Amino acid sequence: VNIASRKKHLLMQAASIEQLRAIPGTGAFSVRADIGSGTQLYRIDARGAQTQIVVHQPTVGVGNADQSVRSALSDAPKMVGVLSYDWSPDGKRLWYAVLKKVARRQKPLFDEEIDGQVNVRRPPVDACVEYHLRSNDGKDHLVASRPLNDRVAFYLGGNISWAAGEVRYTIENAAPNRQSQFSSIGIDLNTMSPRKVPEPPANPFGAPILGPRGGLLKTVGFGAARVLIENMRDGSTHSYGSVSFSLGDPRSAGNWRSADGNAAFVGVRMINHPRYTLEWIDRRGRHLMSDADSFTKCDFATDLSLGVCIREGLSVAPELVLLRPRQSSTEKIIAISPNHSAITPLRVTPKIWKNKLGYFASGFITWPRRYVPGRRYPAIIITHGSDADERFARADVEWNYPAQVFAERGYLVLLINDPAPSQDATLSAAYDEWMSGDGAIGPHQLQQLLWLNGVYCFESAIDDLVNAGIIDPNRVGIAGYSRGSQMTNVTMTQSSRFRAASSGDGSYLEPYAYSSLSQSYDVIFGGSPYGPAIEQYRQLAPSLRASHVRGAILEQLAAPLGGAMDFYRALRAVGVPAQVTYYRGRDGFSDETHLFNVPSNRLLAMRENIAWFDFWLRKEKSIIMPFPDKYSAWAKMAAAQRYHATGP
Amino acid sequence: VNIASRKKHLLMQAASIEQLRAIPGTGAFSVRADIGSGTQLYRIDARGAQTQIVVHQPTVGVGNADQSVRSALSDAPKMVGVLSYDWSPDGKRLWYAVLKKVARRQKPLFDEEIDGQVNVRRPPVDACVEYHLRSNDGKDHLVASRPLNDRVAFYLGGNISWAAGEVRYTIENAAPNRQSQFSSIGIDLNTMSPRKVPEPPANPFGAPILGPRGGLLKTVGFGAARVLIENMRDGSTHSYGSVSFSLGDPRSAGNWRSADGNAAFVGVRMINHPRYTLEWIDRRGRHLMSDADSFTKCDFATDLSLGVCIREGLSVAPELVLLRPRQSSTEKIIAISPNHSAITPLRVTPKIWKNKLGYFASGFITWPRRYVPGRRYPAIIITHGSDADERFARADVEWNYPAQVFAERGYLVLLINDPAPSQDATLSAAYDEWMSGDGAIGPHQLQQLLWLNGVYCFESAIDDLVNAGIIDPNRVGIAGYSRGSQMTNVTMTQSSRFRAASSGDGSYLEPYAYSSLSQSYDVIFGGSPYGPAIEQYRQLAPSLRASHVRGAILEQLAAPLGGAMDFYRALRAVGVPAQVTYYRGRDGFSDETHLFNVPSNRLLAMRENIAWFDFWLRKEKSIIMPFPDKYSAWAKMAAAQRYHATGP
Repeated sequence: VNIASRKKHLLMQAASIEQLRAIPGTGAFSVRADIGSGTQLYRIDARGAQTQIVVHQPTVGVGNADQSVRSALSDAPKMVGVLSYDWSPDGKRLWYAVLKKVARRQKPLFDEEIDGQVNVRRPPVDACVEYHLRSNDGKDHLVASRPLNDRVAFYLGGNISWAAGEVRYTIENAAPNRQSQFSSIGIDLNTMSPRKVPEPPANPFGAPILGPRGGLLKTVGFGAARVLIENMRDGSTHSYGSVSFSLGDPRSAGNWRSADGNAAFVGVRMINHPRYTLEWIDRRGRHLMSDADSFTKCDFATDLSLGVCIREGLSVAPELVLLRPRQSSTEKIIAISPNHSAITPLRVTPKIWKNKLGYFASGFITWPRRYVPGRRYPAIIITHGSDADERFARADVEWNYPAQVFAERGYLVLLINDPAPSQDATLSAAYDEWMSGDGAIGPHQLQQLLWLNGVYCFESAIDDLVNAGIIDPNRVGIAGYSRGSQMTNVTMTQSSRFRAASSGDGSYLEPYAYSSLSQSYDVIFGGSPYGPAIEQYRQLAPSLRASHVRGAILEQLAAPLGGAMDFYRALRAVGVPAQVTYYRGRDGFSDETHLFNVPSNRLLAMRENIAWFDFWLRKEKSIIMPFPDKYSAWAKMAAAQRYHATGP
Repeated sequence: VNIASRKKHLLMQAASIEQLRAIPGTGAFSVRADIGSGTQLYRIDARGAQTQIVVHQPTVGVGNADQSVRSALSDAPKMVGVLSYDWSPDGKRLWYAVLKKVARRQKPLFDEEIDGQVNVRRPPVDACVEYHLRSNDGKDHLVASRPLNDRVAFYLGGNISWAAGEVRYTIENAAPNRQSQFSSIGIDLNTMSPRKVPEPPANPFGAPILGPRGGLLKTVGFGAARVLIENMRDGSTHSYGSVSFSLGDPRSAGNWRSADGNAAFVGVRMINHPRYTLEWIDRRGRHLMSDADSFTKCDFATDLSLGVCIREGLSVAPELVLLRPRQSSTEKIIAISPNHSAITPLRVTPKIWKNKLGYFASGFITWPRRYVPGRRYPAIIITHGSDADERFARADVEWNYPAQVFAERGYLVLLINDPAPSQDATLSAAYDEWMSGDGAIGPHQLQQLLWLNGVYCFESAIDDLVNAGIIDPNRVGIAGYSRGSQMTNVTMTQSSRFRAASSGDGSYLEPYAYSSLSQSYDVIFGGSPYGPAIEQYRQLAPSLRASHVRGAILEQLAAPLGGAMDFYRALRAVGVPAQVTYYRGRDGFSDETHLFNVPSNRLLAMRENIAWFDFWLRKEKSIIMPFPDKYSAWAKMAAAQRYHATGP
């Protein structure tokens, strides 16, 4: 995009484009892209001419496909040659990581080695990550080879940093008890000899966030007592006073420091009205960018005088903006998707809902297009951890539940987060205990804090809107995938307020999964479901509480999860309307991913969700129903439905 | 093999050879073989010249491999073109079945359709079976296409029979409740038009067994009251008196009837001393072949005057014999494996052991090579359903537990069958209830009859031999795969008599598998393990009874079974020595099969079993231990072992 003329021209078309970066000292860019040979590294000049920089063969499959390496990311299966790269600041050296298949030794596996093979679909191949350092004279040095369970290697290409005469990379020595050890290795750029850096990495998964005094920036404290501080190397601390944001959120735009070190411009997430903005910090003070929407991707001049960002909001489609940090001013350059920007934004209201335990959840009301005060509307809650924020139609919260389409069709849509752990030390400790498994909070309290807590916030939101005459208490639904699927299933089996639900690709909390999830289930439930801990399962496991459900439940799956099938069977056994729809992969060689990657599946699943809520909340059949022959089964379930519980 | 000269010459070498048959009216043979183009149909003449008859492309993978059709058979993964074939008796027509890949439609799956995808490794491709009828003039007629869940199509190529002017095939319409419907279709050989045969097939999975009076032969009654009868078409019955064998066993040599219809020669399995022999039946009477070993494969002249069989026994390696049915005489032609026949046979004693419930189990003692009366020997029971019989070193009972090698090394080896259902109507009804799930025997009684019953027989066998001073009560082990793994795991968690066990590729009875096995678990346990039926699981499920175990348990797996891992973890949690070894496939594209097909895995697993029993029963380390670095772990487990139960 030419910033002056607002004109754009196409430089590259490819199946995937990642890590677009300026090559230092040139007017050209480098990029990882798949233009037919798998993901490789190319140079693109200002006119779009493409040349190879590194093309590594053979490539290795990554993703949910046959003969592929497994990835925690949910993008489409792909073939990878170059995994990651970086230029030295002087442009003279190139660091790159490639993926290499490891000859699979078919020797027997023993005991715990077998765990990773249980219940595995499409047994993965093994591979390693190789680090290379290439200099301008064309010399290519093999630095190291790392296993795939080094997440810093597989997902971040080593999280490298350039120092004087040295490049450093981080290594993770994975431990089964989740207590990985991280360390840094420095490679001398002249001799190529490695050394172990004495101090461990400040942030193994990213760069440390540095302040204008050269120290590490961080927030400490909970709720209203949260303050921003800078920890200096000499052990002293500078406080910048109280703040209502968090630092270092991977969804924020990132962090920059001026070349002279005197100013920092750091990405933050606001807590009460969740959005991503930037905070300017220098020795004289600090200020927040004055913009109601989010900045989600940015880059800045080295003196931080000027930059370019993607700005977006829940009803504001992404646009490219020019940004002047010191002035806190922005200027729109161009719409990223003119078709979306052409839609008159829906009304969106950020909200905080407090529950009966005293905790609050943040979220948003998206109002029906032609909202008429005094009329009661059907409502749908959509939830996914902390992903309800000012970003546009993001799949990580909306998944296959298109919030704006629901609002256009007359639903009041509530995007609601989990109660934020930043509000309270007890809640924060509960999250820590869930992850580490070594706390002492105990199953009952943990279930209350991490699941019921959210349910009670949903109930507060519904009750407020019912009491205000805005929504119809008999036409309330809930949807969520992954963490949102946990919350949907728990809500439906704990609360009597919901008449329909769509639960996306989840089966966590089901006893079926105990063997493979015993570390976290032991914390949540206190042990195996075949012993006395079964009583704690009965308090929370959705399939054991089917008789408490008061609405129809659709489960949409990207994988044939046994626990999801157990929940389905339990619901049908007690007469609750339920359906499971399993969306398969693009072809027989691959599977759909947790975040759907197959566009036709996304479209089918969204249409199915609209049809599901229209049918169960509004008794309407829809022309966009993708499986119209299912209507007769739904009608039969509706006629035969019986609900057992008397409500909480 | 030239019968007169005893000379053999090699006609064909191939990766697989099946269904070798004489082509009627010629001196040539036809055979399904893989000589490089997958399994196809070839003609071989008397000098070994090979020509194609049917080569169907593209082939379809069958077995535990990527992009393959699943099979209940346990042979190595293979590519199949021609699935089955048969010549009309006049040699003028060829029936053949081919396997065709069905384009996998990636449409979503709903509800119960998903069950077949849960916990699936290497998602299978879909295919169908096509029946073709080819005549001498080269015309090829496509008769029908059948789905893979028609087992008669997939495993038996239609189970066809030739009548005057007609060929008939059987179709199975599979029903999810195991109540399949079978019917017969006749194809007119002139017009090729099909008709539905009014009467259902007498035996959908084979040919009916006809007697000398033209009726159907069968045995009725239990125990001493068992009689052989011939059911005539007019409804009358002819009785041949009481017998102590069963008819129609698929392990027997088969059934023949003389061309004039006046005599039948039928394969039988003897009940008390299990072996496969043949019974001559004509209008004057009947007699059994007078041979102590088994006849497992045969073919006979059409007048039944003469035939050739494979004869073998538990310590008699297979040999080719000439057999004269009327005279009940045999004459050895040649040893199939001279190397095995050269070994002096070990002493084998058939036995019957009665238990405290009054039921008996049949079996065999294989004595140590240099048995010294008065000395007490270590002993190992090997069990697998009803497969302990007079056949040589069969993998279906011995699996990776080489009985003769154990005996050569000084163990007394007991091959013991489950108590035969033929002995008693109650026991027979229990087996029926287990399969059909619609009986009323109830979990407690079913557990007693189908699992504890066998345990008590094992205890009788051990107690007898201990009391006779033959075996050492402190050095008794047990091994079995599949059904034998159920019995091994149940025995170890119910009986205090065993100090070591090897359990092969089993996890049945584990609560983990409830969702996928609910039909049979509901019968055995009375419902889900997450409800009140958990009490019945505690009576039988091995992982819930780990604290009752009094010996070390090795689990060898061909698949990473979740229930097997649960049992392992339960054993280790209570201090019982245990190890799981998972043997993987030949390569990254395929898995090992339930009956191992990878020779190197078989060898490793046998050596591991020998080392396991030597270590735990005789406190000896062995040079043939394939994983010597495991000895330190075993020693640690031995030093730390603690047993909790006080015995039964």
